[in-house]
Amino acid sequence: MIQVCEARREKLRLLMDKKGIDALFISHEANRYYLSSFELHDGQKNEYAGYLLITKDGRDWLFTDPRYWDAAKRLWDPSCIFIYGANAANAINEHIKKLGYMTVGFEARTIPYAFQKSLVDGFQCVEGDGLVEELRMIKDEHEIACLREACALNHKLMQWVPSVCLPGRTERAVAWDIEKFFRENGASELAFSSIVAVGPNAALPHAIPGDTVITEDSPVLIDVGCRLNDYCSDQTRTIWVGSNPTDEFKRTMEFVRKAQDVAIASMEPGMPVKEAHAVAVKVFKDVGVEEFFTHSLGHGIGLETHEAPSVNSRSDAVLKPGMVVTAEPGLYYPEWGGIRWEHMVLVTENGVERM
Amino acid sequence: MIQVCEARREKLRLLMDKKGIDALFISHEANRYYLSSFELHDGQKNEYAGYLLITKDGRDWLFTDPRYWDAAKRLWDPSCIFIYGANAANAINEHIKKLGYMTVGFEARTIPYAFQKSLVDGFQCVEGDGLVEELRMIKDEHEIACLREACALNHKLMQWVPSVCLPGRTERAVAWDIEKFFRENGASELAFSSIVAVGPNAALPHAIPGDTVITEDSPVLIDVGCRLNDYCSDQTRTIWVGSNPTDEFKRTMEFVRKAQDVAIASMEPGMPVKEAHAVAVKVFKDVGVEEFFTHSLGHGIGLETHEAPSVNSRSDAVLKPGMVVTAEPGLYYPEWGGIRWEHMVLVTENGVERM
Repeated sequence: MIQVCEARREKLRLLMDKKGIDALFISHEANRYYLSSFELHDGQKNEYAGYLLITKDGRDWLFTDPRYWDAAKRLWDPSCIFIYGANAANAINEHIKKLGYMTVGFEARTIPYAFQKSLVDGFQCVEGDGLVEELRMIKDEHEIACLREACALNHKLMQWVPSVCLPGRTERAVAWDIEKFFRENGASELAFSSIVAVGPNAALPHAIPGDTVITEDSPVLIDVGCRLNDYCSDQTRTIWVGSNPTDEFKRTMEFVRKAQDVAIASMEPGMPVKEAHAVAVKVFKDVGVEEFFTHSLGHGIGLETHEAPSVNSRSDAVLKPGMVVTAEPGLYYPEWGGIRWEHMVLVTENGVERM
Repeated sequence: MIQVCEARREKLRLLMDKKGIDALFISHEANRYYLSSFELHDGQKNEYAGYLLITKDGRDWLFTDPRYWDAAKRLWDPSCIFIYGANAANAINEHIKKLGYMTVGFEARTIPYAFQKSLVDGFQCVEGDGLVEELRMIKDEHEIACLREACALNHKLMQWVPSVCLPGRTERAVAWDIEKFFRENGASELAFSSIVAVGPNAALPHAIPGDTVITEDSPVLIDVGCRLNDYCSDQTRTIWVGSNPTDEFKRTMEFVRKAQDVAIASMEPGMPVKEAHAVAVKVFKDVGVEEFFTHSLGHGIGLETHEAPSVNSRSDAVLKPGMVVTAEPGLYYPEWGGIRWEHMVLVTENGVERM
């Protein structure tokens, strides 16, 4: 991984050069990991594991605290590791000033305000958001292999999950079964908090598994993913528990599956991402239900569940080979629930592949 | 909980008034939850569930996106819920300007730089960090009851854990057993990533459970906690697997336990927190091992595993009734491992109580 990360930093230097950035300070955990393989996760919300400084001359720095010294030196030239104490921002500021870079870029969308203020004292700073994300959008072969493996486990889970979605069981109990299945089959963690939503709960886009009990003849929406070899999976299925699905459920399922199929079939390299979203909307519009599709068609996925590009009407991204995005249309009805169906899609040289 | 949160906001208004803050914008998830009971967790790292504006006149606002509308209106006056779209910061900025507050406080230590810049355009902003944390340091009866319950489950786990720390098992396998034990006994999640460290791994302050196997006659350091009813527990024990602990292990255990006992016995309301740390250091100094105690004595714990006050030599906090802190001295030797021992401690009117 050390060579892979070096190659990524070389590519990043080209993007930095175009923007006139001498050194780019990396604070977002997934970007840090992508460029260094140092610590995918920070500690709790307000605790950072470390930072990087990617420089135009190739002498890149890793900043961290003493707890991580041992982990850091296993994957970074120790002469370019800077250990900070209680006041990280001031210490790093002094160090960057000594290094003498003129124009320093920052990840303004994620770095805390107070940290940034202390950090940039004394030199010119520019917003450098999105450069690493631009690289991360295009997955290399190893990343695609990891995503395939995570996705395969998710498929295996979806095959198995009807066996635990039984009348009398709660959403919470099923969610815990799902988490155990992922973990006992190789996942390091959930990719995101699982959604297991029975009946009307499925109409809530942010349903938290609770004490609602599955009953005979009810719909259950399952939106779950795992992290395997660092990469995330994300899939949704909506199943009918029992043998008598309502006509409304069957009709809604048909619309959702069709919207997904047509949207995926339309995707190809060079297509503006927002058009894929529009294709799904069009399918719903043709049958007069577009107002019940209330979210984006999908999102990029990789080291993070949600990453660039967003697949919605506001996106200005264009599909390119190596992108992996979700296609997850849904229709929601507060009276009885909703249906969402999701696959991960890899953009290839000629079209797309459903993973 | 709605009344409890209202009372907390009333107390916060007194602190705001002293600082001359007309309205305080809350972005840190634990502070948001403490004041509103709205969403303890944000989504992934760069995704917020919502924000609060606590105002001097008591008309407080909850800002969130459409996904959370349903959850929000269950616990907040719907006429004071503001739903934002794609560009949250600009929309909230416009809204705050309309409300007409002159001096708006922000949580500069956690709010992202770019968000803050858009948010404060057009009015005077001041850093308002630490005000909510000041309230959160002193736990009320309900919070203490929750912490007791989380701590009790942690004690139960520590009684049970030797039964799964067996020769031939990996750190990773034991860590997963621990997670299942917590979850199947009522915890909603781990409070933090479990540390299960065998032999020399115990000398790493940031050990990640891996493939290292427990052998007969080896030390195992276990530092784990759970979240139960929203509140965190955190305990460390170091056990000897086998019946022949080395003299060095026994001697080190004696020093660590003594440092903890003496430090806890010294604690009382009115004592500067840094003195408690110094008491533990003194015990180690008396036997010439202080250089092997490389971290803080402890930290506050509540809705977050690590919260105010930090218990170390740089702290300027003073112990007060209702504070809950950890006392976790340790000694580390790269050749063979280390020992840490941790309890949570409640400061009472007269002294402290080991929870």
